[in-house]
Amino acid sequence: MPRFRPLLVCAALWFLALVPARVRAETGAEAWLRYRPLQEEAARQYESLPAGIVLLGDSLVLRSARGELIRGVRGMLGRTLREERDLPPEKAILLGTFSEMKALVPGLESRNKLHDDGFLLATQNVHGFDCLIVAAPTDRGVLYGVFALLAKIARNESLSPLQDIQQPAAPLRWVDEWDNLDGRIERGYAGPSIFFENGNVRADLTRAAEYARLLASIGINGCAINNVNANPRVLENEFLPQLARVADAFRPWGVRLSIAVDVSSPQLIGGLNTFDPLETRVSEWWAKKFNDLYRLIPDFAGVVVKADSEGRLGPATYGRTPADAANVIARALRPHGGIVFYRAFVYNHHLDWQNPKHDRAKAAYDNFHPLDGKFDDNVIIQIKHGPIDFQVREPVSPLFGGLEKTNEAIELQVTQEYTGQQWHLCFLPPMWKEVLDFDLHAGDGPTPVKDVVSGKTFHRPTGGFVAVVNVGMDANWLGHPLAMANLFGYGRLAWNPDLDAKEIAKEWTQFTFGNDTLVVRTISQMLLESWHTYERYTGPLGAGTLTDILGSHYGPGVESSERNGWGQWHRAGHEGIGMDRTAATGTGYVDQYRPPVARMYELLRTTPDDLLLFFHHVPYTYILHSGKTVIQHIYDSHYEGAEQAANLLQQWQSLAGHIDEDRYAETLKRLEYQAGHAIVWRDAVCNWFSRTSGIVDERGRVGHYPSRVEAEGMQLQGYVPFNVLPAETASGGQAIECVPPARDCSATLRFAGAAGWYELDVEYFDQNNGKSKFRVLIGDQVVDEWIADALLPASKPGGDASTRRRISGQALRPGDTIRIEGTPDGEEFAALDYVEIHKLP
Amino acid sequence: MPRFRPLLVCAALWFLALVPARVRAETGAEAWLRYRPLQEEAARQYESLPAGIVLLGDSLVLRSARGELIRGVRGMLGRTLREERDLPPEKAILLGTFSEMKALVPGLESRNKLHDDGFLLATQNVHGFDCLIVAAPTDRGVLYGVFALLAKIARNESLSPLQDIQQPAAPLRWVDEWDNLDGRIERGYAGPSIFFENGNVRADLTRAAEYARLLASIGINGCAINNVNANPRVLENEFLPQLARVADAFRPWGVRLSIAVDVSSPQLIGGLNTFDPLETRVSEWWAKKFNDLYRLIPDFAGVVVKADSEGRLGPATYGRTPADAANVIARALRPHGGIVFYRAFVYNHHLDWQNPKHDRAKAAYDNFHPLDGKFDDNVIIQIKHGPIDFQVREPVSPLFGGLEKTNEAIELQVTQEYTGQQWHLCFLPPMWKEVLDFDLHAGDGPTPVKDVVSGKTFHRPTGGFVAVVNVGMDANWLGHPLAMANLFGYGRLAWNPDLDAKEIAKEWTQFTFGNDTLVVRTISQMLLESWHTYERYTGPLGAGTLTDILGSHYGPGVESSERNGWGQWHRAGHEGIGMDRTAATGTGYVDQYRPPVARMYELLRTTPDDLLLFFHHVPYTYILHSGKTVIQHIYDSHYEGAEQAANLLQQWQSLAGHIDEDRYAETLKRLEYQAGHAIVWRDAVCNWFSRTSGIVDERGRVGHYPSRVEAEGMQLQGYVPFNVLPAETASGGQAIECVPPARDCSATLRFAGAAGWYELDVEYFDQNNGKSKFRVLIGDQVVDEWIADALLPASKPGGDASTRRRISGQALRPGDTIRIEGTPDGEEFAALDYVEIHKLP
Repeated sequence: MPRFRPLLVCAALWFLALVPARVRAETGAEAWLRYRPLQEEAARQYESLPAGIVLLGDSLVLRSARGELIRGVRGMLGRTLREERDLPPEKAILLGTFSEMKALVPGLESRNKLHDDGFLLATQNVHGFDCLIVAAPTDRGVLYGVFALLAKIARNESLSPLQDIQQPAAPLRWVDEWDNLDGRIERGYAGPSIFFENGNVRADLTRAAEYARLLASIGINGCAINNVNANPRVLENEFLPQLARVADAFRPWGVRLSIAVDVSSPQLIGGLNTFDPLETRVSEWWAKKFNDLYRLIPDFAGVVVKADSEGRLGPATYGRTPADAANVIARALRPHGGIVFYRAFVYNHHLDWQNPKHDRAKAAYDNFHPLDGKFDDNVIIQIKHGPIDFQVREPVSPLFGGLEKTNEAIELQVTQEYTGQQWHLCFLPPMWKEVLDFDLHAGDGPTPVKDVVSGKTFHRPTGGFVAVVNVGMDANWLGHPLAMANLFGYGRLAWNPDLDAKEIAKEWTQFTFGNDTLVVRTISQMLLESWHTYERYTGPLGAGTLTDILGSHYGPGVESSERNGWGQWHRAGHEGIGMDRTAATGTGYVDQYRPPVARMYELLRTTPDDLLLFFHHVPYTYILHSGKTVIQHIYDSHYEGAEQAANLLQQWQSLAGHIDEDRYAETLKRLEYQAGHAIVWRDAVCNWFSRTSGIVDERGRVGHYPSRVEAEGMQLQGYVPFNVLPAETASGGQAIECVPPARDCSATLRFAGAAGWYELDVEYFDQNNGKSKFRVLIGDQVVDEWIADALLPASKPGGDASTRRRISGQALRPGDTIRIEGTPDGEEFAALDYVEIHKLP
Repeated sequence: MPRFRPLLVCAALWFLALVPARVRAETGAEAWLRYRPLQEEAARQYESLPAGIVLLGDSLVLRSARGELIRGVRGMLGRTLREERDLPPEKAILLGTFSEMKALVPGLESRNKLHDDGFLLATQNVHGFDCLIVAAPTDRGVLYGVFALLAKIARNESLSPLQDIQQPAAPLRWVDEWDNLDGRIERGYAGPSIFFENGNVRADLTRAAEYARLLASIGINGCAINNVNANPRVLENEFLPQLARVADAFRPWGVRLSIAVDVSSPQLIGGLNTFDPLETRVSEWWAKKFNDLYRLIPDFAGVVVKADSEGRLGPATYGRTPADAANVIARALRPHGGIVFYRAFVYNHHLDWQNPKHDRAKAAYDNFHPLDGKFDDNVIIQIKHGPIDFQVREPVSPLFGGLEKTNEAIELQVTQEYTGQQWHLCFLPPMWKEVLDFDLHAGDGPTPVKDVVSGKTFHRPTGGFVAVVNVGMDANWLGHPLAMANLFGYGRLAWNPDLDAKEIAKEWTQFTFGNDTLVVRTISQMLLESWHTYERYTGPLGAGTLTDILGSHYGPGVESSERNGWGQWHRAGHEGIGMDRTAATGTGYVDQYRPPVARMYELLRTTPDDLLLFFHHVPYTYILHSGKTVIQHIYDSHYEGAEQAANLLQQWQSLAGHIDEDRYAETLKRLEYQAGHAIVWRDAVCNWFSRTSGIVDERGRVGHYPSRVEAEGMQLQGYVPFNVLPAETASGGQAIECVPPARDCSATLRFAGAAGWYELDVEYFDQNNGKSKFRVLIGDQVVDEWIADALLPASKPGGDASTRRRISGQALRPGDTIRIEGTPDGEEFAALDYVEIHKLP
C-alpha cells in the first residue's frame, strides 16, 4: 500500500479557511471562491440552515467537502457549521455517498440513477428532522455537490425545498498545463509555473493545492501538469517521487494527476536503442515504468501524448501509426486504470505553400480518420476545436465527425495564445458554445460536437473535454483580472455544455464581484461582447487571427502566415483573399465534413460571412451577405472593433467605486492598454489591405489620420528614424529610436491648431528587454513622464510592442512646442511612432 | 552665501505629481491631500477655470505653490494648467506677493492689510481678462493661498466670483516631534522616525519632504524634529550638515527647521566645565554655535528647551532661573532672527505624596509667573494646555493668565499619549476647542486662551501654537487611519481657533474620504463622539485618565498615580476621591487663576461635573449636578463608554463598500480592538472602585459577568493560573499562562447553556515580546486560530496587553466542550483571561 504523505498544504488552507469573515485584499487569488459575506437581507433566508454536518464515510475528498462547506458558509453567512460525529437530535446536513447513506436514508439511491461525479441535493426527512442531503455515487460527486450548494447560497437562491440532480455531460473533464520543468510556461502569460522551478517540482506546492480546489469547484477531475512538448525527464525514476508530491496536493480535491510524455522516452531515458512501439522491449519498458509510477501514485490518471508534430519525434520514425504509439502506452496503463490522451494536432509544418492543394487544415482528419477503430478503449483522441490552431474564428474540426469507433475529447484553450494573451479581454465561452452546438450531421438526428465528444453519439465508453489553461504564479492566476472567467466558463461547459454563455458570464461575475446589479450587468455585458470585439479588430471573416504566427502569436503580422511551410495561409494577394478549401476548385478540405456540412461550406452562397475566407478565395470586391464588399468589411470591422475596445474601457470606468480598488485598477490598466492596442491592430491590418488591394476605404479613414503627427516628421535631437518591419506595424512604416551612446533624445513638434483643451496620445514601443524613460513637455513644462516597463512579448519595435500613452487634459495654444524626451535602457531604445492630438469637447 | 542643495526630493515629488489621474492604492500616505477626480457634475463648475498660471517672482516656495496648484487641479479636474512665463492674451491664474503683483494689478495691496502668511483669493479684471488672483505679503502666504484654493475645489465650492481673505490667528504655528537620533520616537505610535536612524539623519528624506508639504497645507510654519529630552549631539559640528539636509527638505514648503537643545550642551559637548547661563564663556559658546549653524541653515527657526524637568539638567543647577537659561540662548539666536520655545513643563517629580499641600499642577505657574517680564522678546513660554500632562480632561493651565509681559504658546498633543495611542479613536479638536475658548478673565472683556497665546490680549510681539505630533514611517503617518484628523484639526485651529470642531471633522473627512454624504456624515459623527467616549471608559469627572502613568500611559492603572512623587494623584481612597485644590482646604491651586475663575473652581456647587475630581475631594456618595452619585457615575459612564465604543465599530461597518478596502480594513481592525479594550478599561476601573469604595453598582453589572467563564476556572492542561498585577487588569485578578518548557497548553470548559447560535469572546494577552499562537476548538473542531502579534505597549500580561478575539456564529449544544489551545513564543506565554459566551439573537 502506498503511504500518503501528510498534507502540509492542507494545514495552510485550514488557516485561510477560518478567516473569510475578516477583510482580505482582493488580489484575485480567490478567483470565484470568495465567499464574501452576503447582504443582511439575502443572508436571512439561510437562517434555517441546519447547524451541523454529518459526514458519512471518510476520505480525503469527503473531508475536503465538509471543510469547504464549513468555509463557504462561514464566509457568506458568518456561521461555523458543526462537525457532528453522529446524527444529532436535530436537523443536519448529511454528506456522503449513496452507499454510505443507504442505512440512514433508505430509498435515496433508488430515486436517482447517477453517473460517477453526479450528485443529488435534496431536503428530506430523516428520523423526524428535515435534513439537507448532499449525496453522490462517489466521494468526488459529494465534493461537487457541496460546491453546487455553496454556489446557490452565493447567488442567493432558495434552498427550501431543495431537489437538484446534476451530473456531468462527460466523464473526462481535464486541464492541460504547458509548464516546462525550468518553470517557464509555453504560451503562459501569468508568471512562472506553480508546479516546477529550476528543473524540479517546487518545494512549496501551496498554489498547486489551491489550484486543484478551484478546478474541483467547477468539476475538473484531471490535470496534466507539464508541456505537451514534454521533457523526457518527467519519467526518470528519481523524478517520480516529485510527481507524487503534486498528486498529493491534488488528491484532496479529486483532481487526478497526469503528465505529458515523450514517446521516444524508452530510447532517451530508458537506455534502449529504439522506441518503436511494436518492439517488445519498448512495451516492456512502458509497462515497468508505469508499475513504478503507480506504486507512488496509485490514482495517477494517465498521460498526454504529442508526437510527430512540430519537431516532436513519433511513431512515424518507424513507419508506425499513432494508434501503435497510443496503444503501447495505453496497454501499460490499463492494468492501473490509466488512460492516454493522444493529440490529433499532428501536421507537417514544411508544407509547400506554392501548392494550391496543400492544406494544413486537413492534417488531423487525414492522419486519424483512417485509424478509426484501431485505438484501444483507454485511448482518447484529443482534437483541437478547429482544424488549425486556436484562431479567433475557425470552423469545427471535421475529425469530430470522422471517428465513430474511437474515444474523443475536444481541446479548447483558456490561455489566450491567439486571442490577446490576457492583455486583451476576450471571453471565449460564446465561441466554445458555437463549436459545441455545431451539428456535425454525423448520424440520425442532431449530432452536435458536445454529444460526440461526450461519447453519447457513438456510444463510446469515455470522452470529454480538455482545456489548455497555463495558470501561473501571478496572484490572480491568469494575469488579467477578468481572464479567469474563461477557466470558469470552460469548467461549466465541460460539466454542462447546454449552459448559456450569458448565464455563465453572469454566474462568474456574481461569484467574483458580488451581486451588485450594475456590476453584474456591466461586466457580463463586457465579457459577452469581448470575443466579437477582438475578432473585429484582428482577423474577421475567418481569415485567421492575422497575428504574427511565427513568434509571439500576439500583435498584427498579416504576412507572417504566408510563404512558409506552417500552413496558416490566408492567401491574401493583390486581387483577393481566402483559402479555397472547396472540393470543386480548392484543397478539398470541405469533403472531410459529412455531406450536409460539406455542402454548406462548398458554396459561397451558403457559407456564413464569418467563415467565408476560411473556405473560399474571393476578390476584395466580393459582396458579403451583409451587402458590403469584403474589403470594406475589413475596414469597417476594424474601426468598429477599435471603437468597441474603447467602449469596454468606458463600461469599466462606469464601475468606479463599485469595485474594490485593487481589481479595479489592474483591470483599468489592461483595458486602457487594450483600447490603444486595438488601434495598432486596426491600422496595421487596414493599411496592409489598403496597400495590397489598392482599394480605398470608402469612408476615407484608412491611411488618413488628421490628428496624427509622425515621430519621424518631428524635429529630432538624438533620435533617428528607422524602418519598422513589417511596415504596417508602425504608422507610416517608420518610427524613431534613441540609439546608444545617445542618452537623452527628443522629438519636438510645433502645435498649429486652435487654442483649447486637448488629449495627446503618444504611441511608443514597450519592449521586454529594457525600461526606457519618457517625458512629455509642453513648452518647458513637464506634463507627463513614464517608464516603459510592461512585460509584452516584444524584443523589438513593432506591433507587439506598440503602446499608447494617453495624456489627457492639456491646454494647447497655437505655436506651442510639444517635446517628447526618451532615454533608452538596455536593448530598448525609447522608440516612438507618433503623437495624436485630439481636441476635447 | 549658503549653497542650497539640489532638491532630489522635489524631483521625486514631480513624478508623483503627474500621476494622480491614475489609480493609486489608498495607503493613507496622501492624508488629506488626495486630489481624487471630482464627480463629473461637480467638476463641471470649474470648466471656466483659466488654463494658465502666471507666477510673479520666483523662489522655492513660490514654485511649490505653482506645482501644487498644477498637481491638485490635475488630480481633481484632469487638466494640466499651463506654466505661463508672461501674462497671456487670455484669462489666467496669477500667483505672487503683493509687491510683485503691484505693477500688473494696481491697487490690489491697498485693499488688504494682511499679516505675514495671510493671503487674498480674488477674481479681478487684469488687462481685460477675468483673472484669478492668489496674492499674499509673503511667498509662504501665496503657498497657503494655493492650498486654500484647492480645498475649495475639493469641497466643490464655487470660485466665481472669488473674494476671500484669510490670515492666521498667530504668527507661530509649530509642530514638535519627539524623535530620538536612534530612530525611536518617544511617545510615537506609528513606526520609526522619518528624520533619524542609527544616530544620524536618514539618507532618504523623501518622507520628511512629504511631511513638510502636509504641514504647509494646514499652515504650519515650523517643525522641531528631535525629542525635547534632547541628545546634545544635535549641536555637534559634524551633525550640523545633517540638520541642513532636513532644512533643505522643508524649505520648499515654507516650514522652518527647529531643534530641541540640551541647556547643558556647553559642558557636555562644548568642552567647558560649566553651562551656567550667566557665565560669559557659556554665552560665547552659544553665540558661536549659532553662527556656525546659521551659515549652513540661514532660515533656521530656533530651538525648543526642556530643562529642570523629569531628570533634565537646567539652570537650577547654578541657582539660575529659566529666564536666565532662555535668554542666554535667545541672545545667541537673535542676530539671526531665531527664537526660543522654553517649555513651562517644569516640575518636581519627587513630591511628597503624603503632604496634602503638595500639588504638581501648581508647578508651571509657581516657576514661571514670578519671571513674567524677565524673558527676552524672542523667547516664547510653551505651556501645556492643562496643568498636568495631556490627560483626557484637565482644566486650562492657569499660567496662560499668569504671564502678561511674556510671549506664550499653547502646547497640544496630536500623538495620543494618554488618549489611546492611536489604537483607540480619539478626535481631540473638541477638547482643544474647549481649552482655546476658555475665558481666563485676564483682562477687560473676554480673554479666551486663544487670544492670550496669539499675543492679542496682552499685545505681545509673538506667540502661538505648538503640537507634539510624532508621525512615523508607517505609510499613514500616525498608525490609525483616522488619527490624522487630529493633525489636520490642530493645523486648522492654529490658523483659526474660531473654527468649529464639527466643521473641521467634516472638512477632514471630505478631503480624506471624498464627498459621499453617508461617509461624511458617519465619519464626522464618529470623530465628534470619540473623545467623550474615550473619557467615559477611562477617567471621567476630571480624575485624570486613570491609566498606568509610570510606564506605557496606555491601559488602565488606577493606583499607579498614587503613593509616588509624580504628583498625578487622584487621591481615591475608601471613602472618596479627588484632589482638593481649593484655597480653603486644599492645595490652593485654584488661586493661580484670576478671581472669577478661581471662584468657580473653589466651590463644589459651581465646579462643572466633568472637572469635579480635579478640584475637590468628595465622598463616593456625593451627588453630582446630574443627580447621580459619583460612584454610580463612574460605573454608568464606563458602561456607556464601552457601549459607545462598540457603536463606533457599528457605524464604521455601515460604511462597508463605501470606502476603499485598504483603509476600511485597517480602520475596522482598530475599531474592533478598541471595542474590546474599552471593556477591559470598563471592568478594571469599575472593579477597582467597587472594591475600594465597597459600594455596589446599583444596576448590578460591576463584578457580575453571567456570560463569562474565567480561564483559571477551566480544566487546564499545561496552563497554570497566576495573579495579574494590578489585579483589576485581569478578570477576577487572575489569568493562566503556558510557561515553557510547556509547549501546547489548553483550557477547556463544558458548555451548559441552551442550544443556539453564539459568539465567543476570548480575552487573551498580546504582548510585544512574543507571538503566541491560539486555537479554539468546539469538540474536536477547530473554529478559530490566530497569532498574537499586535505591537501593543506591553511586555507582560495586564491591561496594556488584554485583547479580545471575537469568534462569531458558533452553534453550541449542551455538553459541548470548548477548548482553547495556546502555544507560547518568546517571552509571551499565551496567557488567557476569560471567555465570554453570548447568545446571538
